[in-house]
Amino acid sequence: MPHILLLGAGRSATVLIAYLFRQAGILGWRVTVADLSVAHLPKPEQEYLQIISLNIQDEAQLKAQMQEVDLIISLLPALYHPIIARWCLKLRKNLITASYVTPEIQELHAAAKEAGLLFLMEIGLDPGIDHLSAMNLLDNIRQKGGNILSYKSYTGGLIAPESDTNPWHYKFTWNPRNVVLAGQGTAKYLEDGRYKFIPYHQLFNRTEPISILDLGEFDGYANRDSLLYQQPYGLQDVQTIIRGTLRRRGYCQGWHLLVQLGLTNDSYQLPESAQITYRQFLKSYLPPVTNTQTDWVNRVAAYLNIPPASEALALLQYLEFPEEPINLEYATPAQVLEKLLLQKWALQPQDKDMVVMQHLVTYELNEERKELKASLVVLGEDQHQTAMAKTVGLPVGIAAKLILTGQLPHTGVVIPTHPNIYIPLLRELETYGISFVEEERTL
Amino acid sequence: MPHILLLGAGRSATVLIAYLFRQAGILGWRVTVADLSVAHLPKPEQEYLQIISLNIQDEAQLKAQMQEVDLIISLLPALYHPIIARWCLKLRKNLITASYVTPEIQELHAAAKEAGLLFLMEIGLDPGIDHLSAMNLLDNIRQKGGNILSYKSYTGGLIAPESDTNPWHYKFTWNPRNVVLAGQGTAKYLEDGRYKFIPYHQLFNRTEPISILDLGEFDGYANRDSLLYQQPYGLQDVQTIIRGTLRRRGYCQGWHLLVQLGLTNDSYQLPESAQITYRQFLKSYLPPVTNTQTDWVNRVAAYLNIPPASEALALLQYLEFPEEPINLEYATPAQVLEKLLLQKWALQPQDKDMVVMQHLVTYELNEERKELKASLVVLGEDQHQTAMAKTVGLPVGIAAKLILTGQLPHTGVVIPTHPNIYIPLLRELETYGISFVEEERTL
Repeated sequence: MPHILLLGAGRSATVLIAYLFRQAGILGWRVTVADLSVAHLPKPEQEYLQIISLNIQDEAQLKAQMQEVDLIISLLPALYHPIIARWCLKLRKNLITASYVTPEIQELHAAAKEAGLLFLMEIGLDPGIDHLSAMNLLDNIRQKGGNILSYKSYTGGLIAPESDTNPWHYKFTWNPRNVVLAGQGTAKYLEDGRYKFIPYHQLFNRTEPISILDLGEFDGYANRDSLLYQQPYGLQDVQTIIRGTLRRRGYCQGWHLLVQLGLTNDSYQLPESAQITYRQFLKSYLPPVTNTQTDWVNRVAAYLNIPPASEALALLQYLEFPEEPINLEYATPAQVLEKLLLQKWALQPQDKDMVVMQHLVTYELNEERKELKASLVVLGEDQHQTAMAKTVGLPVGIAAKLILTGQLPHTGVVIPTHPNIYIPLLRELETYGISFVEEERTL
Repeated sequence: MPHILLLGAGRSATVLIAYLFRQAGILGWRVTVADLSVAHLPKPEQEYLQIISLNIQDEAQLKAQMQEVDLIISLLPALYHPIIARWCLKLRKNLITASYVTPEIQELHAAAKEAGLLFLMEIGLDPGIDHLSAMNLLDNIRQKGGNILSYKSYTGGLIAPESDTNPWHYKFTWNPRNVVLAGQGTAKYLEDGRYKFIPYHQLFNRTEPISILDLGEFDGYANRDSLLYQQPYGLQDVQTIIRGTLRRRGYCQGWHLLVQLGLTNDSYQLPESAQITYRQFLKSYLPPVTNTQTDWVNRVAAYLNIPPASEALALLQYLEFPEEPINLEYATPAQVLEKLLLQKWALQPQDKDMVVMQHLVTYELNEERKELKASLVVLGEDQHQTAMAKTVGLPVGIAAKLILTGQLPHTGVVIPTHPNIYIPLLRELETYGISFVEEERTL
């Protein structure tokens, strides 16, 4: 009886747990779900399903649990994955995660291959569904004899239109800290055959308008390294490659102001963050008061050289920066901003989230130049069946099934760019309503 | 016969070497000057003066030389100083440098003290003359019974008015790499009793106008951590403390554009810097061409939201960004910019440099509020007797004399904030024309 151990049972694991439990009944698996706190999970009735409390830091306990099973799935924070992957190697277990392949993980490739093990990484949403769908699209074009000129791909974890109730058109449907730190560093991409660079302090000022089906307009900003998948996708000869993140119109203009002020910095601690208010925090980034500007909105407008009535500034006004103590000891600016945003962008119990993704490919075929647009929209159903939990959890779950039924003939550290991974995965995802709409036009 | 070893005989050492050689004749010292390349130094006739070639990386040779002498002076790059200081400790030698006390050096304080050794650090220009003159000023006010409210201090290594022949009013009189990287990180200071922060991408947009004697207007931008000397200067209760760097009017506005574009970044390598031209380098930081802007100047103006005829943009135009290959392999943006600036800001043989410093102190005494301004201007005489070499070398040389004549009753890692260091030093500096002009007014 194949036995799966799922490490990590947080908010994004709900759909995966339901999928695994269901498949266990059908396919005769045992499933053990382990996390530090599991009180929020209903106890399953079937004896082949188990929920246990496990401290990942307790090596003996972790090893004992891993030894029992045939396949490890981890939704733990990415920093644990090198440790877990090394244990998988020692104990001879296959591994699935939705995290990026880091150099530390990549180092295990040869050893995993030699041991006949599969460490399937980057198989959630982004990274994950982006790889599956991009490779499907690109391989189809190549099979027809098309010559790919340009590849752009954007993904966003956002709020569903019906729950879009603030002027930022954003709520935290995903790790707030990652949202605050998004884009730090220099963005690198390729455009018309030339490398392009965007420093962080300009990133949210350099967006591309993206229109998705009947959802209207979004803004896409470039990810840190768009060139990372140029080779894995076989796009060495492409003229343009950009990968980015989607926000609703307006968000990036407002966020650009926060970046310009310096409020997203995570590299130093504020000496007085336990004593001062949010308003004082904001003011510590403003130049001295001049006679004509007294309130903070006008001071920000004058400093950043924008009209006081601009929409972007209205987004800052929505955040208020209230005269209320921050109450965080030695916080970084980014931590203070996160705490403020958690109040303003909190997901309400009735709120539904939304995942959007779009690939834009131009290619030449039979002397014609074409643009192919493939768009995905996934809506959350409730607090548990979120779009994020579906799009992260289902690819992982389906991959587990393919591995345990012997349908994935790969070994080593692998990302899902191979047809024998992406074809069955996309096919089953479609049955869950996760499918792309393709629109093509001749340029 | 006391014997001094001077490590490092670069451009800023000329005045120090002349001073040490002169004092050696008067006071009966031996002086050995050591550097990797010493061919540029004239061979002294006196047998008590020696110039030797020494590879600092060759530990045996370094140790053998150090063992011979009574006092080590180092003008080597700061990164060597922890190694040299540890050797000084082992070999029981006093040490003088113009470099900052790093945590690694500070760690040796107790051991140096116990061994009865003096490691006198931060005794050049900045750090150095700034400490001497600030402490002299502040202690005088405190002795009169004054209560110090605000302390601001700015220093600049610039070009003399007669050699000021480009629109940036700047040439490299000092380490070009440090000029390009100046200010990276977040500037932190205290203003009206509140901590203030300036992110790097705003630093050159947040200058303070400073007027120095008959030299006219300068702009001061804040150093990274102005609070570093709050405690050593005894300014714990002050309301405002800023330390900064001076540039001529216009420079900071132009430099702000280079920062905004991202050209001063030193954190990543450009994949094509060996092949592309300076113009292509610049363009890789610009958004795509729109119909209305075609030349780079208009594109920069539109991108950074400034008038195409602005003075700051004229400074960028002066740099040309020519269509000529950069010819540097895997250079960082900062390295490319440095190479371009080395052509545009080169010091000519007849050029003279200038050092300026100003302290601005406000204090209360007898119910009156006063502002005291102390300004220093030092002009270079020629390529060798530069203002920089004088202001770095003379404090070091005078300190060496005080140590060897037993006039510095200190041990451990010390910076020159004590009256028995700064009083004799300032007195002798005055005989070399290095003296402050004080202007006081009641507010």
